[in-house]
This record gives sequence, structure tokens and C-alpha cells, in this order.
Amino acid sequence: MDKIRRNERMSAMIKILSDAPNRIFTLSYFCEMFGTAKSTMSEDIDILRDVVKQFGLGELETVTGASGGVRYRCSVEREEACRYITGLCEKLSGPKRVLPGGFLYYSDILSTPDIVQRMGNILATEYYDQTPDFVLTMETKGIPVALATAKALGVPLVIARRSSTVYEGSAVNINYVSASGNIETMSLSRRAVEEGQKCLIVDDFLRGGGTARGMVELMREFNVEVVGAAFVMATASPDKKRIAGEKSLMLLSIEGGEQETAVVRPAPWLSE
Amino acid sequence: MDKIRRNERMSAMIKILSDAPNRIFTLSYFCEMFGTAKSTMSEDIDILRDVVKQFGLGELETVTGASGGVRYRCSVEREEACRYITGLCEKLSGPKRVLPGGFLYYSDILSTPDIVQRMGNILATEYYDQTPDFVLTMETKGIPVALATAKALGVPLVIARRSSTVYEGSAVNINYVSASGNIETMSLSRRAVEEGQKCLIVDDFLRGGGTARGMVELMREFNVEVVGAAFVMATASPDKKRIAGEKSLMLLSIEGGEQETAVVRPAPWLSE
Repeated sequence: MDKIRRNERMSAMIKILSDAPNRIFTLSYFCEMFGTAKSTMSEDIDILRDVVKQFGLGELETVTGASGGVRYRCSVEREEACRYITGLCEKLSGPKRVLPGGFLYYSDILSTPDIVQRMGNILATEYYDQTPDFVLTMETKGIPVALATAKALGVPLVIARRSSTVYEGSAVNINYVSASGNIETMSLSRRAVEEGQKCLIVDDFLRGGGTARGMVELMREFNVEVVGAAFVMATASPDKKRIAGEKSLMLLSIEGGEQETAVVRPAPWLSE
Repeated sequence: MDKIRRNERMSAMIKILSDAPNRIFTLSYFCEMFGTAKSTMSEDIDILRDVVKQFGLGELETVTGASGGVRYRCSVEREEACRYITGLCEKLSGPKRVLPGGFLYYSDILSTPDIVQRMGNILATEYYDQTPDFVLTMETKGIPVALATAKALGVPLVIARRSSTVYEGSAVNINYVSASGNIETMSLSRRAVEEGQKCLIVDDFLRGGGTARGMVELMREFNVEVVGAAFVMATASPDKKRIAGEKSLMLLSIEGGEQETAVVRPAPWLSE
């Protein structure tokens, strides 16, 4: 193989690192791949760290210690996060997306890959320090954002179902009271998680918090610690949710009048 | 801003290009971003194209014409695809993952972000030329792979539901016969797709093809052309599916004996 130049090494490295966010790669791994000395590799990484920062492309971190190396994180600065979410809010506000019954249509936002990955990166940024072992969501509409968050955190996604299916094997079922006051079931395969793990809840919508409360209780059955709960959209009312310390990206209220209109605004923590 | 060096430009460019697969960026876009001449930029791209190829990190294509520029594709070479899927098959084969009733547990594979993205890249590689406008899946388990495929193709994901919900607005419902012989319903919001679009179906599992057939019929209701159908896993029997020309990544058979065991192998087209 011909000698690899710095610009080639750096391009390959940023691609490899950012394809596996939050995973630590040892310097030796790259030294071997490119046939270069550790000192050269350290210089490459120093330059890359600055590039990534300068162009707002995330964050490159050097991790010291025995299992040390370098890792890429999809970190989004608060200001940029707020700017992006404000743009989404503008898109969602107004009368056009209001459905009969005062619901908001935003399924398209929830399944467009680049929007979903941006939201996932913003949420992951908030929870890197809590080091969750997996992301938990409840089917269906939150799955894409939850997957994107899990990807940014470098952990698996776990999906709770509305009922147990033959494809999941033995499962733990719990009952919970939904926003509409109905008793619902939530089911999770016994194989899906391990005792003692840490979990981040990610879902698309938070109204009263009944489903979120259900997910917390489900995790208790598995002896899993919930380190956080994040949502794409929360309703402004009820003000008091049945879950505490949650983070939502957007706040929704439907305002009446001759024609109902949606008022969607970025959550206050985004401008802190 | 200081003058940006080639290694910095190239690193930023590959990250920006690969974050938006299949999207064409004009040369002017990058020239403006970095303050460089078009000739320099062309050289950068030539080097990048080789790097990406050399390290098996996808494909960089120059698109000529009025709307021309450069785009990144998550293309996976057939040989590498076969190697990767063979590894997954080994992980899934054996008695440990067989559930009562002769079902295979592989929900974990279907929601681990890096596995899902690799499978999505492999499927996208097969359908770039068909230029689908969106990816369609049926809730629940296929959503992550479908999202990953949509991401690689640079198009939105559309999720059909088992029943219409208040959050989706007016919907088209169809009935279909499932593998188990039951009559099931499939529902899709009217707002989700537009007449005349092209669709790629992606789902987790293909047994008889009833659900896939349902998706094809649903698309007919919307006057949408189905350009392909791809699945993570297909059962070896029945040999004849109710859908034609489909591509699956893996073939499954459960073999009897004192203890049932799963035999999972890569689909034949992967070694063509």
C-alpha cells in the first residue's frame, strides 16, 4: 500500500469515528490501519478536533487511561439546538396541521431521517453524561427519534409493545392508565434488557405522562434505573405531568377561535 | 477566518456529505464555505473519492449537468455485504434463539443502531438506481431498518399503521389476509404520500407475503408505484411468496429434532 497522506488519513478517520458515535477507538487501532506512528496520529487527532468544532460537526474527545483513545460525539451546542428547534416550531405552527379533535399532525417530522437524527443528536447531547446502557421507547411513532438518539449515544434501542407477541418470547406485562383514562397494557421481552442497566426513555409525545409513568414502572420490574426521559413534543396543559425531570424539545398548545391553530414553541431549557 | 488547509477541508467535507447521503451538493456550496477556487475543490473531491473507496466507506460520485455537483452514497460492495450478513447469520443460528412455536428471537438485531444502519446501507445500495421517493414500512419491528434504508437513500420514511389513529388525520384503510389467515387492517394517513411517487417497501419479516401484498395494494390506492420490496428475514417455506421480485437479506428455517434449531443463511443474491 502506498504511503497515506495526512488529508487521506484524517478524512477516513472522521468518517470511521462518526459512524460509531461515543465508541472509544484506541490510537493503536488507527496507527495499525494507516501504518503511522502514535505521535503523528496524535497530531492528526488534534487537527481533527479543531475542524469538527470549527464547523459545528460535533465533538472529538480524547479519553485518557487504560481503556483510553479517541471518540466522536454528536454534541450540538445549545444555541444551535435552539435555532434548529425554533425552525421546526415555525413549520409546525399555524392552522394547517391541526386535525379534528385538536390534534397536531407531525408524523412526517417524526420519520424524516435527517430531522430525526438532528433531534436525536440534541437529546443525546443532554444525556451523554448519564451514560445510559440503552434507550427505551413505546411503539410506534417515537421509534425513529429513539433510534437516532440511541445511535448518537452508541447504545441499543429497546421497544416496548402494546401487547406481547410470539416473536418476543416470554415477556413482562404491566398495566397503566393512559391520557384518555383507559387502562392499557405495555409489554417487554424478558430478553430485551439486563438487571442493573441504566435506561433513557425517549418518546414522541407527552401529554399527562401516563405512558411515561408506565415505562418507568416497567423498568422497575426489570431492576433498571431510569436516568432520564425525553420527548419530541409536550402539551402545555396539563402543566403537571406524571413524570418529573423530563426534557421535551417543543411545547404545544392548540388555541381556539373560529379556526383552531397550533402554537408550537421551543422548550425553555433550550435557551438557557 | 484563517486559511483552511486541504486536510481540514477534506475532513469537514466528508462529514457533511456523508451526513446527507444521496443529496447533491454543488461545488459552489463548498467553495463558498471554505473560500477556495473550484479547481482546488475538484482536486479535493478527487482525493476524497479515492479515500472513501480505498477504505470501503461508501462512494463519492460526481454528478454532471445543470443540477450537478457531488454526492455521497452509502454503497456497500457485494462481497462486503455478504461477509457482514454471513456474520449476522452465524449469530442467529442455533437453538438458543428459537422461541416456543418455532419463532426466532432477533428483535435485538433489529434495533441495534449500527447493525440496522449496515443492513440499511446494503439494501439502499440495491435500490439507488430505482430512485424511490420514500420508504414504506408497516409498524413495528421493521421501522429501524426501514429508517436506516431511508436515511441512506436520502428520502423520508412512511409508516403504515394497524389501525387509524386520531393523530394521523383522514386515512386510507385496506384489509388484507395475514400469514396466520386472519383478516387484518392496514391504515395510512392521506397526508403521508403524494400521487405519482415511487416507493420502496422495507420490512423485517417475510413469511407468506400477505402483509407485503397489503402494502402493495395500499400503494395502489394512492397511485404510487412500488419499485421494490426488501426484507431483513424471509422464511425458506413457503417457497412461493405472494410478492414477486423481493430481496431479503437472510433466509430462515427452523429444523426439528429433540430440540428445535434455527438455520439462518445469507440470501443467494448476496453471493452473485
